[in-house]
Amino acid sequence: MANRIITISREFGSGGRTIGNKVAERLGIPCYDQDAIEALMSQAEQVFAGKKEKGTDPRKWLAELTANKKSSRELSWELQCLMIEELAAKGDCVIVGRCADYILHDKHDCLRVFIYSSYEDRAKRIVEVYGETDVPTMRRLKDKDRSRAAYYYHYTGNQWGDREHFDVAMNSGALGIDRCVEALAKLF
Amino acid sequence: MANRIITISREFGSGGRTIGNKVAERLGIPCYDQDAIEALMSQAEQVFAGKKEKGTDPRKWLAELTANKKSSRELSWELQCLMIEELAAKGDCVIVGRCADYILHDKHDCLRVFIYSSYEDRAKRIVEVYGETDVPTMRRLKDKDRSRAAYYYHYTGNQWGDREHFDVAMNSGALGIDRCVEALAKLF
Repeated sequence: MANRIITISREFGSGGRTIGNKVAERLGIPCYDQDAIEALMSQAEQVFAGKKEKGTDPRKWLAELTANKKSSRELSWELQCLMIEELAAKGDCVIVGRCADYILHDKHDCLRVFIYSSYEDRAKRIVEVYGETDVPTMRRLKDKDRSRAAYYYHYTGNQWGDREHFDVAMNSGALGIDRCVEALAKLF
Repeated sequence: MANRIITISREFGSGGRTIGNKVAERLGIPCYDQDAIEALMSQAEQVFAGKKEKGTDPRKWLAELTANKKSSRELSWELQCLMIEELAAKGDCVIVGRCADYILHDKHDCLRVFIYSSYEDRAKRIVEVYGETDVPTMRRLKDKDRSRAAYYYHYTGNQWGDREHFDVAMNSGALGIDRCVEALAKLF
């Protein structure tokens, strides 16, 4: 129970990543989102694939993982768990997505957050933030939510967004992003 | 959209009423819980039943309601709605339970809160607060939750505890009552 971690799960278009970054900035701690974690995983995978030299920092888990001979999907999940555990072990931080709430719950003092919002508010936001695409907005939201729910269920066995697995859930559309940030900083 | 109201729905044994009272105290505004609202309704019902004189304060709604000739259950619900609307119209306040989130949502600037907790934490709490009874603790929790859910669904048509109808949901067992109070005061 060394470090204090805020994990943020979020519906697509709810602004959960923005909230994560702002809370982290406010608290003066790092925020790791999907892009950051995938970049770290990609580096590690290049080491696995022999495309990159192991260098002077061949962390223990590389050897352990290669010894396992699992499917690439399982290996990728285990690698992600280990990357997230390494990040959490470094110090207090915010981690957005990637089932971090499940991975870290028993190992650190986690504040497990779920950010959600109405379809209307999220539809408006994804068009503002990501622009229009050929796919209708509502379909984009539903597809992405479904894939996040399926991913979460596959690896954790839990229902995504089930309040049993969160400490606090906030409606970012009703409250506004800044009020969510303030309240989370207070809860931390 | 005159007043700012915090409405608190809560699972039995989650400490939602205590949180409501503490937030109200912290903010210097009144808190109305089930007992307070039922006491007001009982006064009004005595007037209806002719057991009490109308006195000098025969509020408009008494006349409107008696003119309707509805079932006593419907009348009781309408009376409750009007009592809650009257309380909310008086000024900023906290209202615990009684579907206040549904009743006031479109009429005031409401912060709609749902307080929940694990069965284990709630079981521990109800024994501490209300003592043991002949009914097994888990049964008491489930019966009370079911009756709250049924009541909420009957009058609002919404699922009790569905996050769509709340702005923030907090796990009082994981966060502790005081942290919930702090965060809600901040959100208000």
